[in-house]
Amino acid sequence: MNLKLYLKEKKEAVDGFLRDYIASRKNRRACPADLCDAMGYALMAGGKRIRPILSIAAHEAVGGTSDSILPVASSLELIHTYSLIHDDLPAMDNDDFRRNKPTTHRVFGEAAAILAGDALLTDAFNIISHAEAPAGILINVIRELSHACGPEGLVGGQSLDLVLEGTKAAKSDVEYIHTHKTGALIRASVRIGALMADTSPAGLACLTEYGEKIGLAFQIIDDILDVTGTIEELGKSTGADDARGKNTYPSAFGLKESREIAERLVNDAVRAVENLNKKAEPLSEIARYILSRRN
Amino acid sequence: MNLKLYLKEKKEAVDGFLRDYIASRKNRRACPADLCDAMGYALMAGGKRIRPILSIAAHEAVGGTSDSILPVASSLELIHTYSLIHDDLPAMDNDDFRRNKPTTHRVFGEAAAILAGDALLTDAFNIISHAEAPAGILINVIRELSHACGPEGLVGGQSLDLVLEGTKAAKSDVEYIHTHKTGALIRASVRIGALMADTSPAGLACLTEYGEKIGLAFQIIDDILDVTGTIEELGKSTGADDARGKNTYPSAFGLKESREIAERLVNDAVRAVENLNKKAEPLSEIARYILSRRN
Repeated sequence: MNLKLYLKEKKEAVDGFLRDYIASRKNRRACPADLCDAMGYALMAGGKRIRPILSIAAHEAVGGTSDSILPVASSLELIHTYSLIHDDLPAMDNDDFRRNKPTTHRVFGEAAAILAGDALLTDAFNIISHAEAPAGILINVIRELSHACGPEGLVGGQSLDLVLEGTKAAKSDVEYIHTHKTGALIRASVRIGALMADTSPAGLACLTEYGEKIGLAFQIIDDILDVTGTIEELGKSTGADDARGKNTYPSAFGLKESREIAERLVNDAVRAVENLNKKAEPLSEIARYILSRRN
Repeated sequence: MNLKLYLKEKKEAVDGFLRDYIASRKNRRACPADLCDAMGYALMAGGKRIRPILSIAAHEAVGGTSDSILPVASSLELIHTYSLIHDDLPAMDNDDFRRNKPTTHRVFGEAAAILAGDALLTDAFNIISHAEAPAGILINVIRELSHACGPEGLVGGQSLDLVLEGTKAAKSDVEYIHTHKTGALIRASVRIGALMADTSPAGLACLTEYGEKIGLAFQIIDDILDVTGTIEELGKSTGADDARGKNTYPSAFGLKESREIAERLVNDAVRAVENLNKKAEPLSEIARYILSRRN
């Protein structure tokens, strides 16, 4: 298969949905213009849409054909974007650039950035609640997502990340941070694709393992790129983790072992889905891409 | 009926649920202690629980008897609390006190306050998704709530409030701010109580009108108390709106007319539910209480 083409096609579909979403908010005029602008700026700043794509790929891997997978998968990008906006705030990671552009609070101010994040998080649930699928399935999706991005998921990971900043964290804490801060939403993205296809427990188990492994691998590679990448490749400053005293896989395990752990995780992920049919091929390819990516 | 006793009993039920919710998050140990502490601090800081109580009262007014109304109604307090935490942040209203206690960011720091707000907002949807009720009803509740607290609701109202701070806003803008910033969630609280009882369109229409009217009246009275109340009564600084250049009903309409508008709204609200049966009595009493409250 041609992964590049696959990623391009899916990204375009997601971008199209997200563009329409922002446009519809603006057209209805019920959302103040400044707020809509900040939301749209952050959302359309050029993300890879890896979470929605994973969700769609997982859906297709278990034979799902629901039209509603596009809105549901796209809502994951609202969650991801909200988390980036809030993370970049001065009180949090205090980042001025993201994807080669000034961060949302640098352009619209802190208050607008906080509110834009709040709005995107809330709208993710609104989009899912309006998807055309059996209510029981949508409730499963909302359970999954709200757990994955709540205090026992993404927000929990962010919290421990900040609390332990500047200290030498135990390896188990670094693993907690990564599996929660980044891993939980990626795992949920994959599982939500499967839930939307109302898949068997066996299919869901395979995809859960896949999602868990690539979720952690994704953040480990992120950490490695922060050490070895260039600002042009990443669209943000490099060496930022170290300067900030962040606990990363390279800082806890060293670069070489971090790379080995990521490779092992990706191999496990590929193995987890190899017994699914040929439709699972994009998932294996995406796992390998995560390992080899430069940004 | 004895309104004071009614409010006390319902508040105790809601407080009990919220206490258990925080305790369960702590017990599972999956939520970092600092985050749980900040969430619990804000949530248990002594709110009147007016939104959950309204939701329960509306549920009972249309004959609802669902045990799940308690968790669903209590989730409204998570939303309300999240909005207070974020509003109080230095980049927003920069408030040091709330309900006679230091605000969350004053105790736990800004980053923890931002994350605690995010976590409570997310967990509200998680709680609803786990309520024991038909999935179709829960999806209706989630649609209602996510719209009411999203960019076309609460967050939209906050946004315009901040944008117009320090300017002399048109009366229509002040009305937009109030019906969205405060009114939308109160209206939704009432409607959610009705939705949980799977009520008739006619019953829902009465309660919607009731909710809309008291939602706006509630914020108008808040504005009036900010001018006429004392710090002891309110548990926060008074005259703050004026000092900050906030657009309020007193600033746009004058104190006397604001009071008259609030009275008219409350009378309309009482009339909207007078054709429901005797079980709607608490709703009328709460409407009158909103008008006469001192904090």
